[in-house]
Amino acid sequence: MKARVHVTLKPGVLDPQGKAIEHALDTLGFSGVEEARQGKLIELDLAESDPERARAQVEEMCRKLLANTVIENYAIELEA
Amino acid sequence: MKARVHVTLKPGVLDPQGKAIEHALDTLGFSGVEEARQGKLIELDLAESDPERARAQVEEMCRKLLANTVIENYAIELEA
Repeated sequence: MKARVHVTLKPGVLDPQGKAIEHALDTLGFSGVEEARQGKLIELDLAESDPERARAQVEEMCRKLLANTVIENYAIELEA
Repeated sequence: MKARVHVTLKPGVLDPQGKAIEHALDTLGFSGVEEARQGKLIELDLAESDPERARAQVEEMCRKLLANTVIENYAIELEA
């Protein structure tokens, strides 16, 4: 079973990478970008095939390693 | 209009960050992870409100800046 984890900075946390993207896009002539934020996408290939247990495992991985929950949010998507 | 861009390494391209995640998860006792790959998630807030034009703009941003199309794939999701 495959899982995708989106890790994004919480609103209000400074995002220098996002700001750099905003400025670069502006320099390239894309003037209609009001905000850019950059996060991480982690794709996992799991041996577990039960969706409920897989989600519980990935939740624990996020809390223990993949996300810094002080400044980051995470969202989990499972694919069969 | 909001757009989310997923930038992922093409299959076959070496992903040291993904390998580091795999090993770290294994060390933490998560033995059921067969593969981990890390990509980027870019969230854009666009002034454009027409979905078709917004998608075309974001496609161009991906080709010009956000993704290195030699080694990376990108996928665009629009939200109203």
